[in-house]
Amino acid sequence: MDFQDYVSVDCVIFGYDFERLKVLLLERVMLDQATHKVIFSDKILPGSHVLNNEPIEAAAKRVLVEFTGIEDIPLHQFKTFGDLDRLSRQERDILWLKNIHQDPSQRVLTVGFYSLVDANKYKLSVTKQQTHPEMFKRNPAWYDIETIPEEMAYDHKQILYEALSYLREGVKYNPLVFELLPEKFTLGLLQKIYETILNTTFDKRNFRRKLLKMPFIVPLEEKQQKVAHKPAQLYRFDWKLYQQVKRNNHDIML
Amino acid sequence: MDFQDYVSVDCVIFGYDFERLKVLLLERVMLDQATHKVIFSDKILPGSHVLNNEPIEAAAKRVLVEFTGIEDIPLHQFKTFGDLDRLSRQERDILWLKNIHQDPSQRVLTVGFYSLVDANKYKLSVTKQQTHPEMFKRNPAWYDIETIPEEMAYDHKQILYEALSYLREGVKYNPLVFELLPEKFTLGLLQKIYETILNTTFDKRNFRRKLLKMPFIVPLEEKQQKVAHKPAQLYRFDWKLYQQVKRNNHDIML
Repeated sequence: MDFQDYVSVDCVIFGYDFERLKVLLLERVMLDQATHKVIFSDKILPGSHVLNNEPIEAAAKRVLVEFTGIEDIPLHQFKTFGDLDRLSRQERDILWLKNIHQDPSQRVLTVGFYSLVDANKYKLSVTKQQTHPEMFKRNPAWYDIETIPEEMAYDHKQILYEALSYLREGVKYNPLVFELLPEKFTLGLLQKIYETILNTTFDKRNFRRKLLKMPFIVPLEEKQQKVAHKPAQLYRFDWKLYQQVKRNNHDIML
Repeated sequence: MDFQDYVSVDCVIFGYDFERLKVLLLERVMLDQATHKVIFSDKILPGSHVLNNEPIEAAAKRVLVEFTGIEDIPLHQFKTFGDLDRLSRQERDILWLKNIHQDPSQRVLTVGFYSLVDANKYKLSVTKQQTHPEMFKRNPAWYDIETIPEEMAYDHKQILYEALSYLREGVKYNPLVFELLPEKFTLGLLQKIYETILNTTFDKRNFRRKLLKMPFIVPLEEKQQKVAHKPAQLYRFDWKLYQQVKRNNHDIML
């Protein structure tokens, strides 16, 4: 047994489809070898063991491409999970691991990464060659954060909810939201994204007043086009200015 | 080789002594077996391999007690480090590891924890039995953050500086500072702590106005006693109220 037997990565990819907040999950399927009937199926985060000569973040990027087709997105390491029994709490996890000749009682440390992307932007697909014909992962798909599937592999539901906490803190203090917005956006769209992610509602006037105080949210000399309602003002996010402001900002915001 | 050969924890303990920000380091010493002269000595974070049946946070707590004598402090997991060559970049690390029969080219993943404590509160001591008489860790001591020793083991200087970034973000958004303050404190002391940790200065009036807007910083019907200058108002931090306020707070603070 070597390094890669003990260390894995798992990715919690949040997607916003301009309606709801989603999370990207795979289906884990185990078939009966003889009848090919489904013994069980549940949901699993895109994840994998870290190869011996592979940096950890490279492993996370590889896994994402192999199991979802998503490339070139920022990945934020948020927490490492190492409960002694994280792989052996559920009967079907034990069954699965025994069938791929892994000891379910052997601890594997997993490093969690999260990201927030535009859910409409990617064509999802699995390209990874899977070696056990009756056991495989398939169908990467977006699941509503409000209706997370009940049955998930290992401690993945816990990892997912912890990632959600980090995401919610993250969007409050870091410009994650602007990574997924179109270059030109309205304050209405910005408010809707924040409300969806934080699962709250903001007073429109307070929200606008607060956001417009931020010098890096810059009005454009342009309005929306081809809309039925009164066209709204467009804005852009000035990344360079944001970095400058942040560098000198020691505001305490308990 | 098993789990514990591949996974370790390292603790970055920041201490405030009511003057400066410090960090807790050990001295790593290697002696010549025959002459007992020092071959090298440098500084190292309190850290250790995670035992097979040991939860990760328990490992961090154990290491702290064994190498520093510090018990019962909150530890914040902040990042996991896994560079392929993190143990083999320096000649003296290679020498050290070979002498304890470890392969310097074998990657070890280390989970980093940080904490912020009152540096005057603890009596520091090493109680851990060390098995190589000519190679040992000793003298846990506080080092000024402004003058971190040049020579540190492995990637520990990188881990330390990353922890410092997390600490500085942490004190801005979380009440870490109030964990080390005396129960009753003046706003002057609070300002001094923030200034020291964030390495900045605040305008006294703005700082007070900002902090006094926070409902969980509660004035007491009490003033300082036995001071030469005009006694200042004392305050306490209301943890329960803080939790309540935070639960309902979705302020965006980019």
